[in-house]
Amino acid sequence: MTTENTTALFPKGEKLTNGYFTGDAYLQTLLSKDKNNDFVLGSVTFEPGARTNWHTHPKGQVLIVTEGEGLYQEKGKTAQVIKKGDVINIPENVQHWHGATTRTKMVHIAITNYEGENNAVWLNPVTDEEFNAANKN
Amino acid sequence: MTTENTTALFPKGEKLTNGYFTGDAYLQTLLSKDKNNDFVLGSVTFEPGARTNWHTHPKGQVLIVTEGEGLYQEKGKTAQVIKKGDVINIPENVQHWHGATTRTKMVHIAITNYEGENNAVWLNPVTDEEFNAANKN
Repeated sequence: MTTENTTALFPKGEKLTNGYFTGDAYLQTLLSKDKNNDFVLGSVTFEPGARTNWHTHPKGQVLIVTEGEGLYQEKGKTAQVIKKGDVINIPENVQHWHGATTRTKMVHIAITNYEGENNAVWLNPVTDEEFNAANKN
Repeated sequence: MTTENTTALFPKGEKLTNGYFTGDAYLQTLLSKDKNNDFVLGSVTFEPGARTNWHTHPKGQVLIVTEGEGLYQEKGKTAQVIKKGDVINIPENVQHWHGATTRTKMVHIAITNYEGENNAVWLNPVTDEEFNAANKN
């Protein structure tokens, strides 16, 4: 098996306290939207139990899981396990959430595309009932 | 120091034999351009001594170094050391190259933006003289 050094790829960054996350989630912004890059780039760390609210992206989002194992769920579908090395191409305007599992941490890079000045529409929290059900699959 | 597991983030992918690289470089394509993502996403592995040709991008490129240590040089400037965790926002139409050092491997994610159907203009190889000079800084 190929090995690399054991330091984390990025610092954890700042704890997210914007009300769009449940549990302990952190954001390290890597790059802001500019004239060439019509996206924001960040590394998001979800401690066990942490997850986003339900939300949509008007022009989609790409996740690159860089550490650990977590969950991705689109509304009305079964939650999928996502793990280090996975790339998830989230379609536009599809309600979904992502985060850790109850027992494992997950870190992902997010490439969040803009439509004009907007890149996300935030909805309700993922309830404990929804989160626990996703963890049972 | 924070630790993570020791497996490589992505497979090395296919050896690059397109004539735009010197030495042993590999590409694992992660995502192609599509209706939401106006970029191609890939992981490029440069074994020691490997580097791109000189080239430009009409709409820039973002590099995220995920392993090791290498070099980035813009024409007429001193080469910079780039290492795991660094994010490099390459401007449009600036002649540059990137790669490993003579002694260390480097792996980066590349987010290569498109202008229409074009994302790169390939130029001459980085000569051994240029590469050795960059390694001396």
